[in-house]
Amino acid sequence: MFAEQGYDGTSIRRIAADADVDPALVHHYFGTKDALFKAVVAAPLDPGTIMPSILQKDPEAIPERLLRTFLGAWESPASGPGFRALVRSAVTNRVSNRLVREFFTQQVQRRLRTLDTGIAPEEIPWRSSLVASQLFGLALTRYILELPPLAHASQEEVIAAVGPTIARYLFADLSP
Amino acid sequence: MFAEQGYDGTSIRRIAADADVDPALVHHYFGTKDALFKAVVAAPLDPGTIMPSILQKDPEAIPERLLRTFLGAWESPASGPGFRALVRSAVTNRVSNRLVREFFTQQVQRRLRTLDTGIAPEEIPWRSSLVASQLFGLALTRYILELPPLAHASQEEVIAAVGPTIARYLFADLSP
Repeated sequence: MFAEQGYDGTSIRRIAADADVDPALVHHYFGTKDALFKAVVAAPLDPGTIMPSILQKDPEAIPERLLRTFLGAWESPASGPGFRALVRSAVTNRVSNRLVREFFTQQVQRRLRTLDTGIAPEEIPWRSSLVASQLFGLALTRYILELPPLAHASQEEVIAAVGPTIARYLFADLSP
Repeated sequence: MFAEQGYDGTSIRRIAADADVDPALVHHYFGTKDALFKAVVAAPLDPGTIMPSILQKDPEAIPERLLRTFLGAWESPASGPGFRALVRSAVTNRVSNRLVREFFTQQVQRRLRTLDTGIAPEEIPWRSSLVASQLFGLALTRYILELPPLAHASQEEVIAAVGPTIARYLFADLSP
């Protein structure tokens, strides 16, 4: 429902009706709509398990592992709709806009500092926000705007084209 | 109003009330809400004038000219709010979602074929959709999600970091 109607268009009352349960039950297990939304979108993106498996060992294979995980998550029926809902509401709703920004600074950037990636700690914010710009752009153009031919390209074609961009943002000299 | 409330949350009646005119006057000059929306967002992006000035002469300076024009348009009080409205509604509303996709294939990709850019015609769709992925991602993360530090970086820093990405998508060998 979040994916289809967006954050504002979704209510706990309608979710409960759809699931044929009492709204009080949803409140009991998930709390507020905010908390429910977090639970819905957080499931497929637990950075505590995903980030170490992407970022630790063979730095030269990080871009491919990152893209493969990212494309796989967007294309999975289990997590794709949640990501779509996340982008839709982050773009239109102030609460989820702030949630995404906080997720990025507190979960992704902070966690990056604790991992052995070979990136200088003071460069992590800049490099990670550039990687985010390409990944969010890929999500938006491939899965939401469905721009051709990017929307129909194979994962291998996307990885070949975008992998070197991620590698450059993570490891290359970016000074003007 | 499109920028703040999104496409669905905006009505010609409320626009007219805000402008202190009769809704019939808005209908008379702009037609439907669709047509009004197109007029609002199309003003700052007339590809017929912008694309030749970015893409013709000195191919090696195209990435910088493209990024400077793109960042300037998003940061201009005259066009920034229109772009924000465009992204917001493209992500949440089916009509503007299709409008953006059509604009990209019919205005941008088709026009690219008529310009002397040095890009092989059969490669224009793939290369232009990759450029779009980075530009849309920049718009989303810098101006809408406001991820730090990308949201606060200078145009020069962004151009230095992202320019080579655009150059590679336009001109480099991208085969797997």
